Amino acid sequence: MTVYNFSAGPAVLPTKVLEQAQSSLVDYQGSGMSILELSHRSSLFLAIIDECEQLLRELMKIPENYRVLFMQGGASLQFSMLPLNVARGKKALYVNTGAWAKKAIAAAKKVPNVTVEVVASSEDDSFTSVPTIAELDPEAAYVHITTNETIGGVSYHQIPDTGNVPLVADMSSNFLSNDYQVEDFAMIYAGAQKNLGPAGLTVVIIREDFLNTEEVFAPMLDYRVQADNQSMYNTPPTFAIYVAKLVLEWVKEVGGVAEVVKRNEEKAALLYDAIDQSQLFSSPVAKEARSLTNIPFVTGQAELDKLFIQQATAAGFENIKGHRSVGGMRASIYNAFPLEGVNALVAFMQAFEQEQGEN
Amino acid sequence: MTVYNFSAGPAVLPTKVLEQAQSSLVDYQGSGMSILELSHRSSLFLAIIDECEQLLRELMKIPENYRVLFMQGGASLQFSMLPLNVARGKKALYVNTGAWAKKAIAAAKKVPNVTVEVVASSEDDSFTSVPTIAELDPEAAYVHITTNETIGGVSYHQIPDTGNVPLVADMSSNFLSNDYQVEDFAMIYAGAQKNLGPAGLTVVIIREDFLNTEEVFAPMLDYRVQADNQSMYNTPPTFAIYVAKLVLEWVKEVGGVAEVVKRNEEKAALLYDAIDQSQLFSSPVAKEARSLTNIPFVTGQAELDKLFIQQATAAGFENIKGHRSVGGMRASIYNAFPLEGVNALVAFMQAFEQEQGEN
Repeated sequence: MTVYNFSAGPAVLPTKVLEQAQSSLVDYQGSGMSILELSHRSSLFLAIIDECEQLLRELMKIPENYRVLFMQGGASLQFSMLPLNVARGKKALYVNTGAWAKKAIAAAKKVPNVTVEVVASSEDDSFTSVPTIAELDPEAAYVHITTNETIGGVSYHQIPDTGNVPLVADMSSNFLSNDYQVEDFAMIYAGAQKNLGPAGLTVVIIREDFLNTEEVFAPMLDYRVQADNQSMYNTPPTFAIYVAKLVLEWVKEVGGVAEVVKRNEEKAALLYDAIDQSQLFSSPVAKEARSLTNIPFVTGQAELDKLFIQQATAAGFENIKGHRSVGGMRASIYNAFPLEGVNALVAFMQAFEQEQGEN
Repeated sequence: MTVYNFSAGPAVLPTKVLEQAQSSLVDYQGSGMSILELSHRSSLFLAIIDECEQLLRELMKIPENYRVLFMQGGASLQFSMLPLNVARGKKALYVNTGAWAKKAIAAAKKVPNVTVEVVASSEDDSFTSVPTIAELDPEAAYVHITTNETIGGVSYHQIPDTGNVPLVADMSSNFLSNDYQVEDFAMIYAGAQKNLGPAGLTVVIIREDFLNTEEVFAPMLDYRVQADNQSMYNTPPTFAIYVAKLVLEWVKEVGGVAEVVKRNEEKAALLYDAIDQSQLFSSPVAKEARSLTNIPFVTGQAELDKLFIQQATAAGFENIKGHRSVGGMRASIYNAFPLEGVNALVAFMQAFEQEQGEN
C-alpha cells in the first residue's frame, strides 16, 4: 500500500534526502564516522553548517545584513525569546490570526516588563481570514505576525506594510513556501519540522540592527550571543542541520523556492477545487486567505468526519485528522509532499462522497 | 584505515545502533514513513518515547517519584533553567570543579533574584581533584555538582552527602557510566551527545517534590510545564529520542549499566596504566579523581603534543586533541568506544615514545 503522510510536522521529506541521510548514518563520506558521531568542531561538520547557511541565503535571497541562527526549542521557545530579547521596557504588537498567534501572544504577555497589544484579530470571524492592521504605535519594538496558521490553514499572501515598526514573523509552516521578501522583515523564525528538516532545529533570520543590545540573563536565549558564536555557543543539533542542508540542496535542484511555490500552488489548487466542487466537503477558510501548505476541510458532521478519517487512514492517507482543537480533516501538503498524493486524496474524497450519496 | 573517534561529543555510538537507525531512515518498521517523518502525536512515536523512558527508568533504577523529561538546549540551557525554576529568592550553592562547573556558576549568577555561593573549589590545584564540601546552608535551594568534567577529566567516584540540601548534578559526560544512585539526587541532567545519543536532546531526571512551584515566565523553560505535558509541550526532537532508545536497548543487551561501567573501568585502566608507566606522557589529574570517560594527557611540551596529535590523526585517531582551553591531548572513551581503540592508542603512544627516545 502506498502511504501518503499528511502530518503537520514532523512531516514528509524528499525521498532523495532520506536516502542521502541514510547513506551517512554509518559512514559519513568515507570518514569512518557516522554523521551522528561528528564533532561539531570538526572540519567535516563546519563545512555542513556553512553550506547549510549559504544555501539558505541563496535560496531565500537573504541580504548580507541579516544573520542566520540555528537554534533549538521550536517556535514555542521563540515566542518567549523574542520579547525577552527586544521588547523589555517597550510595547510589542501582535496580530491574532489563530491558534499559533494566540500562543505567541500568551507567551509574550508573561515576559516581565513587556507591554503586549493585539493590533488586529480575526477572532470575530473564527480565524477564517487575515485581519487588516490599522495604525501602529511607531515606538513599538515590533509587530508580530504568523504568516501561516498551521491549524487554521490561514495564510498571508501579501505581507502588510508596517512602516517603521519592525515586522517579525513566525514562518514555521510556510518557510521556503512563499514569495515574501526577507528585507520586509526584521526577523523571521521557523521550526524546521515542516519544510526544512527533522524536529529539533529552529532557524532564526535576524537583521543585525534588530539584534538585542541589552544582555539576556541566559546566554542560550540571547540572540546576540548566538550570533556572536555562529550558533555554536554550545553543541548544535548537528544531524538536523545536516538534513536541513540536504533539503536545501533538493530545493535548489528542483528549481529554487519559486518553482517549489509553483508546485505547491498546483497541489493546493487541486485540493481546493475538489473541496469547492464537492457537495459534501467544504473549506472553512476565506478564499483570499487560504494556506498552500495546511488545508483543513470538513463535512459539517462530526460522525461523517470520523468515518472519513477512519477509511482514509485505512487506505494509507496518514495523519489526515484535523488538529484536536478544531476537529475535521487537515491535509498538510508541504514542499516535499508529492502531487500524486493530492490526486489520490481527491479521488478518495470523490469516491467517499459518491458512496455517501448512495447510502 | 580503521578510524577511532575520541570526540568528547557528539561522540561514538554503538555500530548496532547506527545500523538500526539507518534502517529506519527511509521506512520505519514498514510504516511507509521515515523515522524523521513520524508525527510526534502518532502512536508509532508515542511508543518510542514511552519505551525510551521505561528503559532509562529500568537501567538507572529511577524511583517512581522522579519524572523523566526529554528537552532541548543542552546542559548550557539547564545552567540557566535550574536556578530560574527553583532558586529564585533563594541561595544556590555550587561546587567548582572546572570549566563546566564554572559555566554553570556564571549562568546562575545572571539569573535575577538568585544568590550564588561557591561552597567548594579545586581551582587552587588547577582543577586536578574533587574538592571536599564543608558545611552547607540548610536553607539553600540546592547544591550543584558536575559529576564529570569533560574538559578537565575530573570525576566524582563518591557522591557527597549534602544532608537536607537537595543535590543537583550535571551528569552530561558520565551519564550511564557510573554507579551513582538516582535517589541521592534531587535532579540530574545530561546532554545526550556523549553516552546517550545524538546532539539536540537533553535528559532531565527530577524528583517530583523538587519541581518548581512558581511558574516560570517561559513555558518551554518551566520544568513543571514540561512534566505536565510529558515532554510534549511542543514538538520534541523525535529522531534524537529514537536513537537514545536504541542506545538504551544496547546498554540493556550488553548487560546493563554495571557491565558498561566495568568495561569502561577496563578501558580507562589500560590507558591510565600506559600513561603512568610512560616517561613521556603524564596525566594532570589526581588518581582518586580520574574520569573513566574523558582522559587528558600531555607530554609537557606543546610542540611535542602538536606532533603527536598530527601523527595520531593521520593514523586514524580522530579528535584526540585536547580542548582548546587546556591544550594537550584528550581521549574521550565513552560507553560505545571499543576496547580495541584503546589498545590501538596505547600501542601508538608507545611507538611514538620510543621513536622520540631514539631521536
